[in-house]
Amino acid sequence: MSNINGIAASSGIAIAKAYILASPDLSFEKKKIDNPESEVERLHQALDISKQELEKIKENARKTLGDEHAEIFSAHLLVLSDPEMINPIQDKIKTDAVNAETALEETANMFIDMFKAMDNEYMRERAADIQDVTKRVMAHLLGVTFPDPALIDEEVVVIAEDLTPSDTAQLNKQFVKGFTTNIGGRTSHSAIMARSLEIPAVVGTKTVTKDVKKDDLIIVDGIDGQVILNPSEDEIASYKKKQEDFEKQKQVWAKLKDEPTVSADDVHVELVANIGTPEDVIGVLNNGGEGVGLYRTEFLYMGKSELPTEEEQFDAYKSVLEQMGNKPVVVRTLDIGGDKELSYLKLPEEMNPFLGFRAIRLCLERDDIFRTQLRALLRASTYGNLKIMFPMIATLDEFRQAKALLLEEKDNLKNEGINVSDDIEVGIMVEIPSTAVIARQFAKEVDFFSIGTNDLIQYTMAADRMNERVSYLYQPYHPAILNLVHNVIEAAHAEGKWAGMCGEMAGDSIAIPILLGLGLDEFSMSATSILPARTQIRDLSKQDLASYKDQLLSMSTADEVEKFVREKTNQ
Amino acid sequence: MSNINGIAASSGIAIAKAYILASPDLSFEKKKIDNPESEVERLHQALDISKQELEKIKENARKTLGDEHAEIFSAHLLVLSDPEMINPIQDKIKTDAVNAETALEETANMFIDMFKAMDNEYMRERAADIQDVTKRVMAHLLGVTFPDPALIDEEVVVIAEDLTPSDTAQLNKQFVKGFTTNIGGRTSHSAIMARSLEIPAVVGTKTVTKDVKKDDLIIVDGIDGQVILNPSEDEIASYKKKQEDFEKQKQVWAKLKDEPTVSADDVHVELVANIGTPEDVIGVLNNGGEGVGLYRTEFLYMGKSELPTEEEQFDAYKSVLEQMGNKPVVVRTLDIGGDKELSYLKLPEEMNPFLGFRAIRLCLERDDIFRTQLRALLRASTYGNLKIMFPMIATLDEFRQAKALLLEEKDNLKNEGINVSDDIEVGIMVEIPSTAVIARQFAKEVDFFSIGTNDLIQYTMAADRMNERVSYLYQPYHPAILNLVHNVIEAAHAEGKWAGMCGEMAGDSIAIPILLGLGLDEFSMSATSILPARTQIRDLSKQDLASYKDQLLSMSTADEVEKFVREKTNQ
Repeated sequence: MSNINGIAASSGIAIAKAYILASPDLSFEKKKIDNPESEVERLHQALDISKQELEKIKENARKTLGDEHAEIFSAHLLVLSDPEMINPIQDKIKTDAVNAETALEETANMFIDMFKAMDNEYMRERAADIQDVTKRVMAHLLGVTFPDPALIDEEVVVIAEDLTPSDTAQLNKQFVKGFTTNIGGRTSHSAIMARSLEIPAVVGTKTVTKDVKKDDLIIVDGIDGQVILNPSEDEIASYKKKQEDFEKQKQVWAKLKDEPTVSADDVHVELVANIGTPEDVIGVLNNGGEGVGLYRTEFLYMGKSELPTEEEQFDAYKSVLEQMGNKPVVVRTLDIGGDKELSYLKLPEEMNPFLGFRAIRLCLERDDIFRTQLRALLRASTYGNLKIMFPMIATLDEFRQAKALLLEEKDNLKNEGINVSDDIEVGIMVEIPSTAVIARQFAKEVDFFSIGTNDLIQYTMAADRMNERVSYLYQPYHPAILNLVHNVIEAAHAEGKWAGMCGEMAGDSIAIPILLGLGLDEFSMSATSILPARTQIRDLSKQDLASYKDQLLSMSTADEVEKFVREKTNQ
Repeated sequence: MSNINGIAASSGIAIAKAYILASPDLSFEKKKIDNPESEVERLHQALDISKQELEKIKENARKTLGDEHAEIFSAHLLVLSDPEMINPIQDKIKTDAVNAETALEETANMFIDMFKAMDNEYMRERAADIQDVTKRVMAHLLGVTFPDPALIDEEVVVIAEDLTPSDTAQLNKQFVKGFTTNIGGRTSHSAIMARSLEIPAVVGTKTVTKDVKKDDLIIVDGIDGQVILNPSEDEIASYKKKQEDFEKQKQVWAKLKDEPTVSADDVHVELVANIGTPEDVIGVLNNGGEGVGLYRTEFLYMGKSELPTEEEQFDAYKSVLEQMGNKPVVVRTLDIGGDKELSYLKLPEEMNPFLGFRAIRLCLERDDIFRTQLRALLRASTYGNLKIMFPMIATLDEFRQAKALLLEEKDNLKNEGINVSDDIEVGIMVEIPSTAVIARQFAKEVDFFSIGTNDLIQYTMAADRMNERVSYLYQPYHPAILNLVHNVIEAAHAEGKWAGMCGEMAGDSIAIPILLGLGLDEFSMSATSILPARTQIRDLSKQDLASYKDQLLSMSTADEVEKFVREKTNQ
């Protein structure tokens, strides 16, 4: 047994055997063979298993990622049935008397090189298809597994370098009891998805893919950020106890599901959730969310081969709004670029993508893309309580331009005779220091603020939150962050507006007392954090916390802040 | 004739023919030849010219970049004289009956591949040497010039994609009348160097290397950011007039060289200079600098194969301090990483280097490097008026750690019996938003602030200043920047400390009235900006400008600020 430390990314305990989601070793020896018939037979067996797997993967992708994504696997299946591809492999086995692996690789490489050489997007995609399919067939020839989230059909803990959005979308909660990765932090995509799926997860272990072998028994402790490898009987028993305690705790929390969020001194704040897709709404409602504080619309644009249509977007927005009834739904317009790329948009490579052409910067230049989204949002606005917010606003000019486009599209729709709500609040993410600093000027023009701490901290500290060498500078409790947050809240209140927060900080048990004391109105977090946060807030006195404000804001370091809060709140 | 727009990077007018500093086309045809003797003869001619050039380049590099850099060219010269390299080329000409170009390339490639394949740093450097030398010899075989700053021996305007630090260091002001580049902005390295060398320059033209041919007549208008290609007689006359006017203006400015910098209402501020090497001090003194506000020590570390020794550094710091007499010299400790790499340090590749492991972050981890620099500075401290500042400080912990190392090394030196000044002020760059926000906390512990606006603006706006797609967000007059600058100055004064600025903004004629009104104590800029700034400040009333403070700080956009200042100061 041994323990691996990581970052607690999603609460809970998972105990199951390891499923390693990583490319297997596909190296092989080129061999001369005596019996080409049996070699061709081996080839066809590998092709058949590959086809069966791809059918399963395709079906799963269709369900979890949509038809368009599933088409990728149809293309893969076509390759496997194409005689122009398969016959040359058979011929090579016979003519050259080589093993199936050699014939497969050489034939595939010939096609790949040929297709790549054609200066044509379509042919390059075909080359990529052949490459993917060849790997799968090769794995079966070599008798190793080519892992895929869709193929998991027993209880496991998934082990991976990292999980992509499409990997996580395909994880089946019935079988995937937990996961753990080498890279990532609490704000990385896979961590956010784990919380949304309510799967225990530990990320940022650095080495777990090296430490763990297939079928090792694994405990993922998503509460304390530990991975236990091949635990002893005693450890298993102790973690089963921890798991039960956690389930009991959840039941206690669940009693607050339909209660309002009020502090000990009877002040109401809003606890709302961050979501990525309409499917996430059920989790929000099950966890007693009072609304959606951040609907990330990027997923509508990702894992596709072209921009989503106005109609597709309308359907998604309408679905979220309808499910949420009259509860508020804050939709963030497209935040693409930076670490989130779209293959079909072909953005230029940037030296510092986090300081680059992304989000509103891109939307104002590509206003065709932006207008489509705004129209879809406006059309959906009559189905619920919609609020729209723009990401990465650094100047008032940007906000004014974005809002002008919104009003233009509203007029256009009205002229087309389409119903649009007249009560849509329009606000901004405060995630760039400039905007936090002159929040007072912004507060005169926006309807609300939502502080995006993940980026705000990264820019305020000038430290890439994905870069492990400077991760010690990602300090949510740094007094500069608290001063900026305070400035934003004061500015909003001075103009009778509200201020929320939709970064990870809003669900953090040290930050919650600080934010309550600073007067934050809305806390948006992972759905699973809502009930613990509600429980915590019911024991806190807002007035007491507010009395520490000046003291906190004049502190020198994040450590000093954390120590003070722990003392005052017995954590 | 035609005009190309760019960014005015260094004032003045240059009129001369174009010298294109870019790799020539070295493509050639493989040919069979009849007369190997004459082909060998051609080879030796090309080798001889290459040797003469390299001797000249080496001598120039020794003078401008130091012995160590010059050694690179000694290595190149060795290759040209090495029979193990030259004989195989001759043999190939004779045996294969091919032209010298073919024999040169094939032989060189064989050696390069061989050396590269050896997994050994030394051999890979040899491969690079052979590659460089082969290009030069190839150019002479093909009858084209292989340009180098050291080979310029007549009056020219240099045209380049960009200029590296070592390119600019080698430019001889006697011959290089101006330069113009495709990329870069006012804060890029080549622009800063142009001002330091007082060579007119226009950068960021995007296309000048494509538009201009060798020996075209060029006017570089570094005042208005224009490049005029093959000008008419009238244009030449008009620009000669502009050139004379500029020279006259400079003479007017020069009268203020030994005058103090006082505003119209008799308030003194300090106008000091940014420098990169001891050689820059002469320009500071000639331009009436009251001190050095930023000595960038990176150049001591760049263009070398290993870290500079304590002794080398001591010599450089001592030279600057002695030349400046009792005038203050603010030395910034090593700011490497980000866009400034050191080949011998092997820093990991980062996705967002500007938000990465650089400057003080690196120095605190690699305290061996840092301590050597601190010792050299402390030893030099008795030779003048030294102040030390740390770059990229984001937390008080970092400052405390850096200062503790400084005090440790001071104790060590004293124990070794070495004299160290006891009056060294220790301050920080304020270039990260977090530090500007909690300047009040910092002001209790530092001796001074120097606001680094180039980075502060980039982080506050979350916009890479080298990325043209977001360059519109590099807004020095954004009210958030003014508020942060104001906060830093107020914090310093509340604790009886001083606040300076060493970013490009300090020398900008719109920013100067604002900064004077906000109470900035020290303005550090390119040496050539000092006299124009002094002239401007003598006409400004600090008290009047201070009365606009609240109005400026509550403005909404950079445009509003600029318009207001232009009106109030008749610009």
